[in-house]
Amino acid sequence: MSGFVSFVSSGPGDPELLTVKAVKRLEAADAVLFDDLSSGPILSHARADADLVGVGKRAGRPSPKQDHVSQLLVEYAQSGAHVVRLKSGDSGVFGRLEEELLALRKAGIGYEIIPGVTAASAAAAVAGIPLTRRLTARRLQFITGHDVTGGLPDHMNLAALADAEATTVVYMGKRTFAALLPLLVQAGLPAQTPALVALGVSTAAQELHRGTVEALPDLLAGIDSAAPVLILYGPLADADEAQTAPKSE
Amino acid sequence: MSGFVSFVSSGPGDPELLTVKAVKRLEAADAVLFDDLSSGPILSHARADADLVGVGKRAGRPSPKQDHVSQLLVEYAQSGAHVVRLKSGDSGVFGRLEEELLALRKAGIGYEIIPGVTAASAAAAVAGIPLTRRLTARRLQFITGHDVTGGLPDHMNLAALADAEATTVVYMGKRTFAALLPLLVQAGLPAQTPALVALGVSTAAQELHRGTVEALPDLLAGIDSAAPVLILYGPLADADEAQTAPKSE
Repeated sequence: MSGFVSFVSSGPGDPELLTVKAVKRLEAADAVLFDDLSSGPILSHARADADLVGVGKRAGRPSPKQDHVSQLLVEYAQSGAHVVRLKSGDSGVFGRLEEELLALRKAGIGYEIIPGVTAASAAAAVAGIPLTRRLTARRLQFITGHDVTGGLPDHMNLAALADAEATTVVYMGKRTFAALLPLLVQAGLPAQTPALVALGVSTAAQELHRGTVEALPDLLAGIDSAAPVLILYGPLADADEAQTAPKSE
Repeated sequence: MSGFVSFVSSGPGDPELLTVKAVKRLEAADAVLFDDLSSGPILSHARADADLVGVGKRAGRPSPKQDHVSQLLVEYAQSGAHVVRLKSGDSGVFGRLEEELLALRKAGIGYEIIPGVTAASAAAAVAGIPLTRRLTARRLQFITGHDVTGGLPDHMNLAALADAEATTVVYMGKRTFAALLPLLVQAGLPAQTPALVALGVSTAAQELHRGTVEALPDLLAGIDSAAPVLILYGPLADADEAQTAPKSE
């Protein structure tokens, strides 16, 4: 008897930003493998007798080896369980999804992917601004601030990233943005480009900080929250206006 | 007495891809202003006595003027109503959100934005592939295939869009991709770059077509479905493997 794995995107943290389908899969699961970031109230949707297994990869702490997570997933499914693999945000966006998909395929285990709300969408919503703008920000791009070594990734397309006519969102960029900034400015990004730093979007740890890209290294250095950090820059909608917008509940 | 507007992102079409918060706002609304694309079963969450107002902007049909939609939104809110403005996908991604936000600010009406699942996330999930890949696709970018004139937007960053090491998602690109392709190839995008066309993702009209970017103009010309078209290209995960993945229900 073979199990099945539902990759469930948990959204940015607020349990109400789970999709209806995500809630259903959590309610039906025999086992839930979760990262630290997506734990808490979201897990309360699981059955009382479901196995809840933390396989956390939290910024700044040593991570379990990805191989180990994939292996655990395969073993749970091979025991016949309906497994939910909970991933924060949208599982397809910087979620290390592919490694786990490949392990399941290799083992012949069926799966599905439930998409979710990525942190960038939630951060913009909370800030009261759109990610794209009809005349000024018709391109939207997401990058990750570090590779597996923890440093800036190789082969960054600086012509793309220094484009002041795109909205750029840097996931997990807290530790490396100070190293990225001079490369961006050298490639043509104006130092005064508007920026937004969003911490722990949609959670109790939520903070929003506005500034310019050149102010970000100091701003980021002053943050001692352990909440996930998202950096947005580009022709963001006017900060003063956006700050008058009510926050999402 | 002043009303309030909830911009509610309805996701790609499947009612189960609404967030829990989106469902709650629909259930509480006095009036729901919706685009054609997000109608149907999603609207069944509204109260029986709620006003349901179609302000549709469907591809290929004449659109109501944006000014008219904004004005209607303001008038409903000024009547004291709790208005849900339903927008397909994530309202912050090519959702023409800004024009409506500005109209509300000008009128002094409070609002909130509920983020949602953007079509790109849903298309990748259905195809069984991630949008980002750890070594080969560390940048993800979204563009729109046309501007308000219906033609290709001006000022496209071709260095960014021709990057074969990024996953690019073209929203609403069905009519213009044939004009974009030679520009991309001239800028360095290999003609054999893997591509995926997703129609009506997560709805009954869903179709997935795989190919290469050079095959897309013919492929797109052969589509006569009116469902929204999303084009993905870049180092997409292997098609043969992905096709063995079960579809999301």
